[in-house]
Amino acid sequence: MRRSQLYAPTKKTTAKSESINAYLLTKAGFVSQVAAGVYALLPLALRVAQKIEAIIREEMNALGANETVFSALQPKQTWEASGRWQDPHFRQIIYFDPEAGMTFGATHEEPMVLAIKESVQSYRDLPVLLYQFQTKFRKELRAKSGLLRGREFRMKDLYSFHATPEDHQQFYEESAAAYARVFSRLGLETYRIKASGGIFSQEYSDEFQVICNTGEDEILANHTTKTGFNKEVEAEVSAEEKKDLERVRSIEVGNIFHLGTKYTDAFDVKYLDNAGALQPIYMGSYGIGVSRVLGTLAEIYNDEHGLKWPTAVAPFQIYLADLTQEGKAEALYQRLSSAGYDILWDERAVSAGEKLVDADLMGVPVRLVVSDKTEAAGQVELKDRSTGAVVLLGQDELDKKLQMYFP
Amino acid sequence: MRRSQLYAPTKKTTAKSESINAYLLTKAGFVSQVAAGVYALLPLALRVAQKIEAIIREEMNALGANETVFSALQPKQTWEASGRWQDPHFRQIIYFDPEAGMTFGATHEEPMVLAIKESVQSYRDLPVLLYQFQTKFRKELRAKSGLLRGREFRMKDLYSFHATPEDHQQFYEESAAAYARVFSRLGLETYRIKASGGIFSQEYSDEFQVICNTGEDEILANHTTKTGFNKEVEAEVSAEEKKDLERVRSIEVGNIFHLGTKYTDAFDVKYLDNAGALQPIYMGSYGIGVSRVLGTLAEIYNDEHGLKWPTAVAPFQIYLADLTQEGKAEALYQRLSSAGYDILWDERAVSAGEKLVDADLMGVPVRLVVSDKTEAAGQVELKDRSTGAVVLLGQDELDKKLQMYFP
Repeated sequence: MRRSQLYAPTKKTTAKSESINAYLLTKAGFVSQVAAGVYALLPLALRVAQKIEAIIREEMNALGANETVFSALQPKQTWEASGRWQDPHFRQIIYFDPEAGMTFGATHEEPMVLAIKESVQSYRDLPVLLYQFQTKFRKELRAKSGLLRGREFRMKDLYSFHATPEDHQQFYEESAAAYARVFSRLGLETYRIKASGGIFSQEYSDEFQVICNTGEDEILANHTTKTGFNKEVEAEVSAEEKKDLERVRSIEVGNIFHLGTKYTDAFDVKYLDNAGALQPIYMGSYGIGVSRVLGTLAEIYNDEHGLKWPTAVAPFQIYLADLTQEGKAEALYQRLSSAGYDILWDERAVSAGEKLVDADLMGVPVRLVVSDKTEAAGQVELKDRSTGAVVLLGQDELDKKLQMYFP
Repeated sequence: MRRSQLYAPTKKTTAKSESINAYLLTKAGFVSQVAAGVYALLPLALRVAQKIEAIIREEMNALGANETVFSALQPKQTWEASGRWQDPHFRQIIYFDPEAGMTFGATHEEPMVLAIKESVQSYRDLPVLLYQFQTKFRKELRAKSGLLRGREFRMKDLYSFHATPEDHQQFYEESAAAYARVFSRLGLETYRIKASGGIFSQEYSDEFQVICNTGEDEILANHTTKTGFNKEVEAEVSAEEKKDLERVRSIEVGNIFHLGTKYTDAFDVKYLDNAGALQPIYMGSYGIGVSRVLGTLAEIYNDEHGLKWPTAVAPFQIYLADLTQEGKAEALYQRLSSAGYDILWDERAVSAGEKLVDADLMGVPVRLVVSDKTEAAGQVELKDRSTGAVVLLGQDELDKKLQMYFP
């Protein structure tokens, strides 16, 4: 893509924000703030989000789950039927239009249960594994962490329905393994953390936490096993065990819950077993915060010059800074585009300094520089954004190097 | 994909709905109703929607537009600033949480203008062309047309910003041409219809209408030029002209608007021309109803047995009904999957009749049937869902035929 055709309004100066991710993503032209805790994803952020979602989608499909899109609108009555409307913890976070009697999808247990109520009759119809990428709305009292805690945010949520607790437990572990793969592919090292079910469930849950000084959570982490405990269940951890644990701050990027029969019972959703007897249905839910993953990556991968995206989710693979007088880098741009690279050609009529500053700020993994001098010598300068290493390469060397970066 | 792993709860009987599209899409397991005018997209509908969006995305990118995702949440204050909050026509369709002071994206002129206010300074920053696929929320008084008029629906909306009316007019015509290409690729014959700006604009607008007996709109259509007038501007059409026009019912699947400087002036968004003088910015908006296109296709492409999707947007290309005793069609399924076909293998332990009924109901363009008999003869039965034609083919003939369907 040509840089002149990309809407990425970088800023020379940006008011310091309380959050690193909001500051950097705003300055680099990835997002535009609409209100406290509400951001528009501009083209660069959307590209990252789409790459994050593609990785999650692959792993969810590999689990045998089916992608759907439910509605944000949910009648208040369904929340009364599940009992959550009456729960002040929930009530206070739910957006609600009193004239219409409609709430706006804070979470989707209720409509998912109601949908399968129509389709599940017998044990042959189970399990059901449905997921979606959906916008969630929650009235966060404190929304000062940029994309880490928004009032409106993108989330992947999966709901599973099983004939027995054993079937559910098996899927729960399969989904935990899938989550580990997702986060690893996204460039995030996660810890599997025991936690309470919070406001979702009476049973325990597992959180996937990324260690980060600016995170809101506090965990007791075992660095060898990459497991640990949320501070909220600290009282249940034995003193002996605590020896191997370090208290650190972290960001929760995913979670998985046992919901038991709480929601299926509330809506009287049961199945007929092979003896013709009605049986309860066991449910689980599994979330990954897509916006939060985007914010976490920005929070972790950066330096004083800007963002440093991991290769798998970078908005572009290559930033081609054209410093020649006459756009002489076009041939290289065309050649690398044709070879399938996702490349941004900065052909704007602005100073060399502005282009190089923008490239660092945007955080694309590989920056190529072509100047009249390198062009005459048949060379290209390659800078690795992550390490800062700079090399001058001939065409064949460049091709080999790029294949190493993007196999 | 294996049919047993697809969540597509077809129904043997479904209550007759006032709308054909809702009836068929529900019976065929594409959607699940959440409330009046609110539908969850189940896997089959999502597959169609994703194909519709991919075609739109290609054409919008070809226009040089940039994809974004703005927020649904919009502070009430911005609607007061534009004056629309005070307009009872708008006020009555807007979902609103009075405690939070937030509205839920009925349309996105306000946040788009506010975003470019930060980034556009000079004539060099124009034009700006931003679009998104976004969920819209509107309190429709009458929501009885299934996916043709929802309270929550998917929409592609594009907003353009230009330095002069002439620049805008040029883009307006380019976008009209792009719309014609989009609808043609989607299998919809559209008429370009002159209409009023409605509640969006004082200026005229162009609608893209599909002739359909069950449509809500009424147009005067010229079948030669594929143009015409909306009934609402009938008074302005001369008697001479009316001779070539037929009064028909139709569905509006897209529209394009001149917004002039109404919204940019409201937020005092101007640019500096090359003489350093402040100038107004001319704005247009361009919508395609993704959910409505899905509903329109269902409304138009069907017969007494079910849906009949056009090839470009069908949820699968091939429905492979395996009527053998031992799932012998698996080899064919694997071979066609490997060849890149989007194929659904119905390997369920249900009757042959149920599989054939489901195939017709789902409306996949090509149905293949493998029975013990055809298998022994080295043949496959192919049925064209659109024409109903059935042929028996050997392997080489099948491969050639499929290449004709899906080049």
